Amino acid sequence: MLKAQGSFFVGGEKVEQTYVELGSFGPPGHISVNQMYVRYMVPQGGDSKAAVVMVHGMTLTGKTWETTPDGRMGWDEYFVRKGHPVYVPDQVSRGRSGFNQRVFNNVRAGTTPQSEQPVMRRFSDEVVWPNFRFGPKPGAAYPDEQFPVAAADELSKQSIPDLNSSLPTPNPSFKALSDLATQLKRAVLMGHSQGGSFPLEAALVDSAGIKGMVLVEPGNCPAAYTDQQIAKLATAPILVVFGDHLSDTPTGIAALRSWQGPFDACQAFIARVKAAGGNAQMLYPPDLGIHGNSHMIMQDKNNLQIADLILKWIDRNVK
Amino acid sequence: MLKAQGSFFVGGEKVEQTYVELGSFGPPGHISVNQMYVRYMVPQGGDSKAAVVMVHGMTLTGKTWETTPDGRMGWDEYFVRKGHPVYVPDQVSRGRSGFNQRVFNNVRAGTTPQSEQPVMRRFSDEVVWPNFRFGPKPGAAYPDEQFPVAAADELSKQSIPDLNSSLPTPNPSFKALSDLATQLKRAVLMGHSQGGSFPLEAALVDSAGIKGMVLVEPGNCPAAYTDQQIAKLATAPILVVFGDHLSDTPTGIAALRSWQGPFDACQAFIARVKAAGGNAQMLYPPDLGIHGNSHMIMQDKNNLQIADLILKWIDRNVK
Repeated sequence: MLKAQGSFFVGGEKVEQTYVELGSFGPPGHISVNQMYVRYMVPQGGDSKAAVVMVHGMTLTGKTWETTPDGRMGWDEYFVRKGHPVYVPDQVSRGRSGFNQRVFNNVRAGTTPQSEQPVMRRFSDEVVWPNFRFGPKPGAAYPDEQFPVAAADELSKQSIPDLNSSLPTPNPSFKALSDLATQLKRAVLMGHSQGGSFPLEAALVDSAGIKGMVLVEPGNCPAAYTDQQIAKLATAPILVVFGDHLSDTPTGIAALRSWQGPFDACQAFIARVKAAGGNAQMLYPPDLGIHGNSHMIMQDKNNLQIADLILKWIDRNVK
Repeated sequence: MLKAQGSFFVGGEKVEQTYVELGSFGPPGHISVNQMYVRYMVPQGGDSKAAVVMVHGMTLTGKTWETTPDGRMGWDEYFVRKGHPVYVPDQVSRGRSGFNQRVFNNVRAGTTPQSEQPVMRRFSDEVVWPNFRFGPKPGAAYPDEQFPVAAADELSKQSIPDLNSSLPTPNPSFKALSDLATQLKRAVLMGHSQGGSFPLEAALVDSAGIKGMVLVEPGNCPAAYTDQQIAKLATAPILVVFGDHLSDTPTGIAALRSWQGPFDACQAFIARVKAAGGNAQMLYPPDLGIHGNSHMIMQDKNNLQIADLILKWIDRNVK
């Protein structure tokens, strides 16, 4: 039972492009770039709880938070069922947010050197398996693995080209997320992996509407933040969530990174926020006897158990 | 009140790519391509009416059918409220369906000539206005215009790069739509503009699950279909929908096409289907005294009035 559902855009600006830049389609003119698509669901009575904004990670889209690869309920619907309005964006340059195709068409026309074309990143399935900690090598799951590995091919379909290298600096998603939170008045920004630090970056733009931040397996908890920035981040409660097997990622051919590094960096970040008077904590399920969670923790078999822990944290910490 | 909502993929295949093709990110391996993302909503009691699949047009995504640019209810929600399960895909190579980035990264690396890079198409706002028949020139609306022209900038944000030129032949969306209909058992395929003929193409692949086809301002009703193909298409009812001002598109700088041409081609197509014993008809609102509808008829101010006409047709014609 929903009070409302729908979609809209945040941000965006007009740029003028040539005939070639538009794909040799129609005369020169203006298009919109850097807008952020957002889909939302508001439950009946949903004005009483904070809105939750769920930002996906690298090569992925808002699909991350929807129906899981093996067909179970995603966090988007579960948080709605628990009374929270839920907003799911596609990062600027991904999915329904689109990207600026100018340079690609100029390269095609030969007026821009090939080497200036932004790279489009993709994870291979062989990289995903060990690095998302489904198991030690593709096809072999950890005994306690929580990711539904039989449906790994469905996760593979969620991956699309990552064009973040084509974006201006700072990434327009930061301001768009901040603006979205301001518009919502009371929002918890949740980010995953590449998007894990986006709530922090959005808060540094303007924290007015940001009443909580949940960093789910962030690729980075930046050590480079200044004390002034840490003080600003300390004005809203912060929860960092990591799964299991953090140091088990095998080194060698299929290993992009160990997740122990980001975990340790986030522990140091939490300590800095607390030292600045803030409310920050780590949710590390193995400490609670919950084992086997993967990098795609929102899609794991126990995803609703993990969601309940986050929901409890929101209830207790988000004003 | 929904019985269910969520998303999934149809189709897709694995391809092996090199380190460079993956964006110099991780070792060589397999990725998924040509899958089609589908979001769905099923109303309470929704098993009693045919599912409606809504396919967007050129440079657009499934957003076409969601909340309108001026914030009103989209056809996705309205058809659900009228008791139909609704399925909204992103065409293969667009939005959350993603595309194959192989050739772009090879061009970047200099191993593929720039000229072999697929073009990425975009409409400029200046092209959209007269060609989508908002008015005779950008900023000037027809007196009876139904498109919410004050929100034209929000439609502009719905546009993303069109990579259909990068797709294999036949377009994988055709089989994906046919497979989706088979999976749904009883589906009405609705396509808009570039996607307007997709229901026909899907039915030519396999019409088992396709119990009706609605072509909304199709860019083309192909005259090239053989009599055998027409006979196959004649096995399910077909409705073609066009708005107003079809021959008013100004010629000259901003004109890509006149819509009178596709309208006339579709009338000829309807005549062929009927001659083959099929059930095909044109819904042309001006004949009913409804004036001013644009190419984005599902977003027009009277979009629910038009939806009601289509819903009535479904009730009467789709078994």
